[in-house]
Parts: sequence; structure tokens; C-alpha cells
Amino acid sequence: MTRDQKAPVCVLGTGLIGGSLLRAAIGAGYDAWGYNRSEAGAQAARADGYDVRSDLLGVLTRAADTDALIVIAVPMPAVDHLLADVSTFAPRCTLTDVVSVKAPVAAAVRQRGLAARYVGGHPMAGTSESGWAATDPDLFRGAAWAVSVDDGTHPQPWRRVVRLALDCGAVVVPVAAEEHDHAVARISHLPHVLAEALALAGTTGGELALGLAAGSFRDGTRVAATAPNLVRAICEPNAAALLGVLEETLTVLSVARDSLRIDGSLADLVEAGHDARQNYETAQRWEITDIRPGDHDWLERLRTAGRGGGVLTELN
Amino acid sequence: MTRDQKAPVCVLGTGLIGGSLLRAAIGAGYDAWGYNRSEAGAQAARADGYDVRSDLLGVLTRAADTDALIVIAVPMPAVDHLLADVSTFAPRCTLTDVVSVKAPVAAAVRQRGLAARYVGGHPMAGTSESGWAATDPDLFRGAAWAVSVDDGTHPQPWRRVVRLALDCGAVVVPVAAEEHDHAVARISHLPHVLAEALALAGTTGGELALGLAAGSFRDGTRVAATAPNLVRAICEPNAAALLGVLEETLTVLSVARDSLRIDGSLADLVEAGHDARQNYETAQRWEITDIRPGDHDWLERLRTAGRGGGVLTELN
Repeated sequence: MTRDQKAPVCVLGTGLIGGSLLRAAIGAGYDAWGYNRSEAGAQAARADGYDVRSDLLGVLTRAADTDALIVIAVPMPAVDHLLADVSTFAPRCTLTDVVSVKAPVAAAVRQRGLAARYVGGHPMAGTSESGWAATDPDLFRGAAWAVSVDDGTHPQPWRRVVRLALDCGAVVVPVAAEEHDHAVARISHLPHVLAEALALAGTTGGELALGLAAGSFRDGTRVAATAPNLVRAICEPNAAALLGVLEETLTVLSVARDSLRIDGSLADLVEAGHDARQNYETAQRWEITDIRPGDHDWLERLRTAGRGGGVLTELN
Repeated sequence: MTRDQKAPVCVLGTGLIGGSLLRAAIGAGYDAWGYNRSEAGAQAARADGYDVRSDLLGVLTRAADTDALIVIAVPMPAVDHLLADVSTFAPRCTLTDVVSVKAPVAAAVRQRGLAARYVGGHPMAGTSESGWAATDPDLFRGAAWAVSVDDGTHPQPWRRVVRLALDCGAVVVPVAAEEHDHAVARISHLPHVLAEALALAGTTGGELALGLAAGSFRDGTRVAATAPNLVRAICEPNAAALLGVLEETLTVLSVARDSLRIDGSLADLVEAGHDARQNYETAQRWEITDIRPGDHDWLERLRTAGRGGGVLTELN
């Protein structure tokens, strides 16, 4: 263990993800504290024994004084506002985030001149709940946690971010920002869009349809229960990638519609979809063990490994 | 209790739904037995102590001799083949089914001259598993069980089918065949189609995307794990209704795509979808208590009640 591996952690935003991260970090032995914009949210966390304040200046000054790792844990639309204060009050701190898109955060970080100490992150965990009341220190256990490996990433902050993710119980998927955003458009943002559309189709059928709805509808619409502002804050900043996969899916559904109309058959869609779900169920994580941060071509090698399903479960 | 309320039950097809029904009926005190086309499937049921044979003639002869309620529990493509034998060997038995569509079964029943003793049914329960091994006597507990109330339905067989559904732990939703088929296109068949398309979108993203997939993708694709032949047997016989709702959903998604492209906004879709999911979560079943089978206009009154969310929890 190097000195900074359990250095302090300062979480900006203590909703579901940030709050769970704060609790997991404390549980893992970190000195950790947080900021929440709403004093009511901060009070809820304090009532549970966590040091969360709505005084951003005080929280950031403490981070600067202790060389804390700062974690941006607010929806994308609120990120730049926080970065402005970070660049003023804690510009030398190592910086990460847990925001649902990576390229827009990285761009905002660059614009604020904070890129040298920044490494993006995104834990793939959540529920349709939000706020401190929904936080869970075990939220990240076994989850994938994407950590950026874009060109220019420095080994030291990268190790520190990976260490935190691992200490929260996650496995780390190394991925470039753009590739991350295209992947999550498929497996996180499209599911939201389809869930909303399915919920709408159900309710259009009135009380009879909703009364007959069972498991397939319940599961298929679960994430439509997420607060609308949060869904928009997750999906809209990734519009370009989401538009691509939405277009692709419209084509898939149109072809299926034509096949059903003309031949009475859904064979092609159903067989391909079943194979795809099998791929998902049988996908195996494998451990990346031979790439050390700072090694020759380490970023490129980690990108390749992550693209092929590789994960980090410990730091070499 | 009238004499026939716990009269024998003969289940044709002992897969997930039929097998679970057989187990639930035995558990509720019925004399019940079954037929399964595959001798291996029949043996699996016998190994668990249930009287299931692959000898259809013997099974139907016993039903005719005991005036059993016959339950057709095979996928739609296999229904007419069974009806042919029912019309030959047990034409006077009361008849129901648990098939995923109602109008096509009713048409086949009419063609075989069996309409007078037929009342369609559809328990809204299932998993992505199939076969005897997946059967569960509690599968129907608390589930909605659609029971047909088309014009011409006779009170006596109707009471018998409702009694069986209630004794299996379900609540009964009275619904006309065509309305049922339109409703399940929305809340059962469309979910299958969207799950297949979502699974496909995920796997197209390769190992990286599948490795980052979490709850929203897992839940949204769950029913894509269902055997393809079964999904086709469920959806394709309902092509007309499914085409209508699929067209509607393509329009909803296209409008959302345009809004995202032009305005960067998913507001309309996300807000409507969230409201729709709220509708679903807060939908309340209410008990129909004042309509007795055989009363003046009982079928029309039950259709109206079912359309408005009414269910039967006991037989008057």
C-alpha cells in the first residue's frame, strides 16, 4: 500500500450513488465526508452519522487541506457548476466522478483546466429510487465500475480511483470515454427509453390491460419509475450515442413488424434476441493481471483488455 | 357448493402452466390428472407423484367417463390437434384453456363444434422457464386469470372454470376474447418483442457493453431468455393486435428520437412513461360482487366491470 491508497475521500453529491459511495468508503476504512446541495439531504446523512454539509466552500477547503480524492456525484447538468468551485478552491486535488456519461464530463474537466489529476469513473449500479434514503453501502458489491483510460491519463490518480472502486467492492472495467458512452447507450440509456415506451403502451390499454399485466410488463417497465429529471439527466447528455442505437433499434423493430405482417413470423427477431440474451447470461469476466499503470502502452493495453471483457480485481 | 364445483380436472399439456395448474388443482382438493405428449415429460410428473400419461386416448376416455373439466394447456399451434381428439373422445366435457390468446382458440373450438361447453381462460403468470421442472403449485397465487365472457357463454361451464381459477389462488378478470387479445398484445407480447430488440442492441455492443450491463438491461431483457419457439407460439397467433401496438410504439419511439435529435430532449417520452408506470403501480383491483352468472345481461355487465379493473374473488 502506498501512502495515498487510503487517503481521504470527498464526495460532492450524496444522492443514491454518491451517498452509497460515501457509506462504502467509510466502511472500507477511508476518512470520507461529503457535500449535498440541499441542507435537508445533508441533515438526513448526518442523522445516520455521516459528515455531510451543504457548505461547499468548507467541504472543498477541507479536501484541499487534506489532499483528498474528490468525487463528483451529481447529474451531468450540475457537473460544471461544481467543477468551477473545485478549480477555484481545490485545484490540486485528484478528481474523479460517477456520472453516467464520460466524454462530456472529461470535456468539462479539460475546460476547467483540471484534466491532469482527473480520471473518470462510472459504477454500473443503481435502482429506480434516489436520494440519501435509498443509499446502500453494498450497492457496488460485485458491480462493474468503469474507469477511464483515455490518452493522457496519469498513473497516480488512476491508481487512486481504481483503489477506491475496488475497496467499494466493485470490479474495474478500463474503458475510453467515447467507448463507454457508446456502450452505456446500449445497455443503460436504451433500456430507459424502451421502458418508458412500454409503460405508455400498457397504460394506453386502460385498466383492463394494466390489470392483466404480469412479470414481463413489470420487469420491462421497472426503470420507468425513475424520477423523470434523473432519466433525462442520464440520457440526454449522451444524445449522439443514444440516437445511433435508437435508430438501429427502430430498424430492428420495423423489420420485425414487416416480417410479422407479411409472413406472420417473428422468427428472426426472436431467435437473434434469444441468442443475444444467452450471450449476456454466459458472458464471463476475466481478470487483467499483467498490465501495470505506467508500463509502456498501459492505456492502450487496458483499453484492449476492457473491450474484450477484462476487469481488474486488484491493483498490481 | 354444487356437485360439479370440485368435479375432476383433466389437464392436456403439463408444461409450466398446465403442470402448475395440475399441481395447484390437486393441492386444492380436485381429482386431477394430465396428458403430456412427451413420455419423458409425463414420467417427470409421475416421478413427483402426479398421474400424467402420454396416452391421449386413455386420458380423454377417463375425462369423458368422469365428466371432467378439460383444460387445454398447450401452445396455440398445438391446440387444434388436441381439439380434434377432444371432439371425438370427450365431446360432452366442459372445456377451457390456458392459452395466451383467446379469439383464435375460440374460433378453433367453434369449428370443432365444442363451443357450447367452452369457456376460455388465461392465467397471467409465467417465468422464462418452461417444462415440468419449472412447475409451481403457487404460480397462480394472487395472479389475474382472464376468463372469457363472450356472448353465448353458458353459466354452468363458466362457473366451473371460474371456480378452478379461484381455487388455484387467482383472481378472475372477466373479458371478451377480442379485448383480451388486444390487452395482452400491450402488456405481454410487446414486452417480449422489446426485450428481444434490447438484448440484440446489447450484444451488438460486444463484450464491453455486456460487461457493463446492470439492472436495467438485465430486467429489460429477462423474457428474451424464454425458448424462441414458445415466444413465437405466444406472439404470432396474436399478430393483428400486436401489429397495431407495435406500430403505435414505433411512432412513440420515432417521435422521441426526433425530439432528442432536434431539441436534445426526451422530456415528453420520459414524463409520459413515468406517469404510465405510476398508473400501473397504483392501479387497484376492485371486487365485482353484484353480478351472478345467468342474471339478465350478466355477460355484458361482467365485460364492463372487467374493462374497469373489476375482478372476481369468489363465486356468487
